[in-house]
Amino acid sequence: MQLGTIDRTSDRPPSKQIADDLRGLIQSSRLVAGEQLPSEAKLMDHYGVARMTARQALQELKSEGLVVSEHGRGVFVRRTVPVRRLASDRFARRYRDQGKAAFLAEAEKSGATPSVDSIQVTEDYPDVEVQQRLRVPEDEIVIVRSRRYLSDGIPVETAVSYIPGDIGKGTKIAEMDTGPGGIYARIEDAGHTLEHFTEEVTARMPTERERDQLQLGTSVPIMRVVRTAYDFQGRAVEVCDTIKAAPAFVLEYDFPAR
Amino acid sequence: MQLGTIDRTSDRPPSKQIADDLRGLIQSSRLVAGEQLPSEAKLMDHYGVARMTARQALQELKSEGLVVSEHGRGVFVRRTVPVRRLASDRFARRYRDQGKAAFLAEAEKSGATPSVDSIQVTEDYPDVEVQQRLRVPEDEIVIVRSRRYLSDGIPVETAVSYIPGDIGKGTKIAEMDTGPGGIYARIEDAGHTLEHFTEEVTARMPTERERDQLQLGTSVPIMRVVRTAYDFQGRAVEVCDTIKAAPAFVLEYDFPAR
Repeated sequence: MQLGTIDRTSDRPPSKQIADDLRGLIQSSRLVAGEQLPSEAKLMDHYGVARMTARQALQELKSEGLVVSEHGRGVFVRRTVPVRRLASDRFARRYRDQGKAAFLAEAEKSGATPSVDSIQVTEDYPDVEVQQRLRVPEDEIVIVRSRRYLSDGIPVETAVSYIPGDIGKGTKIAEMDTGPGGIYARIEDAGHTLEHFTEEVTARMPTERERDQLQLGTSVPIMRVVRTAYDFQGRAVEVCDTIKAAPAFVLEYDFPAR
Repeated sequence: MQLGTIDRTSDRPPSKQIADDLRGLIQSSRLVAGEQLPSEAKLMDHYGVARMTARQALQELKSEGLVVSEHGRGVFVRRTVPVRRLASDRFARRYRDQGKAAFLAEAEKSGATPSVDSIQVTEDYPDVEVQQRLRVPEDEIVIVRSRRYLSDGIPVETAVSYIPGDIGKGTKIAEMDTGPGGIYARIEDAGHTLEHFTEEVTARMPTERERDQLQLGTSVPIMRVVRTAYDFQGRAVEVCDTIKAAPAFVLEYDFPAR
């Protein structure tokens, strides 16, 4: 990677010029997705600037969503190839039967190495929105499963699933390891054969907490996808509330022209 | 509507205090969606501030996406009830047969008065993305139909449709008024019975041009939905590229758990 120089006679602040230089390397693919950027020390040395200037340059690129910092490891070019996610395919029974989680299959297809962290399983009373979506009373316990998905080590999505207690309690749905096929297979084992899903997609700026969890720059929006799974009796058997880093996803849907 | 007062001894700038006051009226529904805010002159008079202060207060609410200004008419509370858009339903043949445009039907359902402006119909060579999506060569003319959708007079979406010239040229598809059922009915009249649609959803911050067209605040993201219509031969017969003000839409999809 060939860093350029800064023009000390220019009106443009050195930090912006360094950001311009690094941005150019990314946009021309001389610095590619997943690749590490020069450290602050390297930038200070190369451009002859103070640490604060080097830091501001990196901060600028972070706020644009071009790079992400990984704690203790450095700053990396954000994956520019988003995960393509075809809804009608990703929850197909054949994938569940293979026991392959949808996100992992998709991320692999896009050439990334997927991972999951921050898995938590708890039981709780549902908030008003979950009550309405699951159509359960406020005093009915629900199983709450939350996790974070990463692509090449970069957080791209958080997800929280809610399953009515009468379906999930005392089963693997309430355990960390849900076994082959995941919670959808276990919900079907419990006699609730899945019939269809609905998804609601919205987009907005992240909350502070979401920004932290997904390590987003200050001007990177999120997409929220709330999926509800229904069984053949028309009962809502799971709600999954996901927050996705917008640059990391293309959501694909297909539907008949009936 | 009862405006409050500002505290001149506070550290908080008067423009922020006025924005807080107006925001409170909106959040407590004392100022409701579609309702007009006090003019700059009214704010100056009521709070005893300069025009610039009043303007900054309104600008603050605009940047949050809570209000929109309509040129020459004033500043209005943005519709907080988004248009719900169920993809598999909105392009159903029964709606086309009634000759009802999907956006108009949905907006009516959400209680808003829909309208369309800036309609343009031209013929042009396709850019690379349209070539790939329609699978047409670069020297094949396409019909380009663009328009803007408004909900209660507030712009919420721009849309550009591309139809291959061999399907659209010399038909109503290339005219301003496409007749009952719109372009999908005309594409079917031309022998291309529609079989299915795909949609790709992404979200990002708007370009300057998109921000202008949709009158967005500086921190309001857009959703881009690119739909492709396929006929029974598997041919792509239309691509529709839409940019939506994110706060104005909930995109709904349903799909079987097959």
